[in-house]
Amino acid sequence: MNLRVVLVEPMYDGNIGSVARSMKNFGFDQLVLVNPCRIDDFGKAMASHAWDILGKAKVVSTLEEAVRESSLVVGTTGKRLGDEHKHLRLHIREPWLTPAQLAEKLKGKDCEVALLLGRENWGLTNEELQLCNLLVSIPTSDLYPVMNLAMAATILLYELSLVEPGGTPLAGPETLERLQVSARGLLDEINYPGHKREFRMMMFKRIFGRAELTEREANTLLGILKLLRWQVNNHKGQVDPLEPED
Amino acid sequence: MNLRVVLVEPMYDGNIGSVARSMKNFGFDQLVLVNPCRIDDFGKAMASHAWDILGKAKVVSTLEEAVRESSLVVGTTGKRLGDEHKHLRLHIREPWLTPAQLAEKLKGKDCEVALLLGRENWGLTNEELQLCNLLVSIPTSDLYPVMNLAMAATILLYELSLVEPGGTPLAGPETLERLQVSARGLLDEINYPGHKREFRMMMFKRIFGRAELTEREANTLLGILKLLRWQVNNHKGQVDPLEPED
Repeated sequence: MNLRVVLVEPMYDGNIGSVARSMKNFGFDQLVLVNPCRIDDFGKAMASHAWDILGKAKVVSTLEEAVRESSLVVGTTGKRLGDEHKHLRLHIREPWLTPAQLAEKLKGKDCEVALLLGRENWGLTNEELQLCNLLVSIPTSDLYPVMNLAMAATILLYELSLVEPGGTPLAGPETLERLQVSARGLLDEINYPGHKREFRMMMFKRIFGRAELTEREANTLLGILKLLRWQVNNHKGQVDPLEPED
Repeated sequence: MNLRVVLVEPMYDGNIGSVARSMKNFGFDQLVLVNPCRIDDFGKAMASHAWDILGKAKVVSTLEEAVRESSLVVGTTGKRLGDEHKHLRLHIREPWLTPAQLAEKLKGKDCEVALLLGRENWGLTNEELQLCNLLVSIPTSDLYPVMNLAMAATILLYELSLVEPGGTPLAGPETLERLQVSARGLLDEINYPGHKREFRMMMFKRIFGRAELTEREANTLLGILKLLRWQVNNHKGQVDPLEPED
């Protein structure tokens, strides 16, 4: 597993520095910052001996750019005080894995993983969570569920550092992207209800993520989708020959 | 398990506040501070909604006072850059458990646990580690093994929050103390070499800790020790009747 830690619009440089330190403590070194705050002396002090991680961090302006090379995008989501919008929550923030379950899932896999952590005050937005293949949530107390960003990152890095590497290569980001494009094409072609289409696309992304598709499996699915779409497009407006006519 | 988090001479109030926050995130509320630094605005800000944990923290001046009511004292120890004194390390800092192993050990137990975390620059001293029944160490990278105090605490609290409570009551602190006193008495009475005595006493403390003695077992051991000491004291200077006279 090759891990990229992506902080999305972090607001406090102390947290950025602390995450860099924990990354080095647990043997990770690829930090990506999406529209970060300025890193001043306090942030550098919190990084301590991990100044090198901070120094070579990649700064980008969009999340898409940050995850482009990752085949598995893991979003972190937490219980929030006064969390409402149950319908959206169900679609966008569930189901999720615990950190230990995430580690178990990645055991023995060889893939590019991006771990996304959101803003201190708001986490990841629904739009950002829709880019994720897997969700992870740290089980916390109902009395005070909201963790500090760097603490949450540290727990995830700790769990991921325990993952034994392995040789099962997962499908690459290009193949997975072609799968998404083809699935969307199919939904369009069968006139799937427009207002539900985005949720279904996200569901595919999540299912493909949790299923840990290999390159071979992803290509086989692509073949099936291609065949399906051909059939759909060539029979549009026709009676299904297998359907009894009466 | 009833957990007391003991910070030994913490130097930065930000860390104290952060530990309080993580405690509340993971459902723990007993914080004990041994000779802490002053807690100013920054410390309070880091505690965030866990100001209540900070407010009711117990401040004491000795570690003995902090752990008096705990039957299991767990010390945290880390690899340190330039760690030397291999002989002392072997006696005082080993063997240790990983956080997950510690959680596994405490599963289903009912006891008073004190988790000790040392100073930011130096951890726990050898003398403080000698008070511990169990040692825990977070596996970190050799490139940069030294974790921030609050990050280390957070990982331990996370693991301990996953421990399922249970009904097996372990021996209380008074019984365990009587066991130590009696074992020391026996070593004195058999004239065990003085320079090794302290290490043996610490070894007993660690073995009793790892063995998770029940009250009944501890009392049985006390009975055996009493009998042994009676025998030793009543046969002092005498030939052992079981020894062939030659």
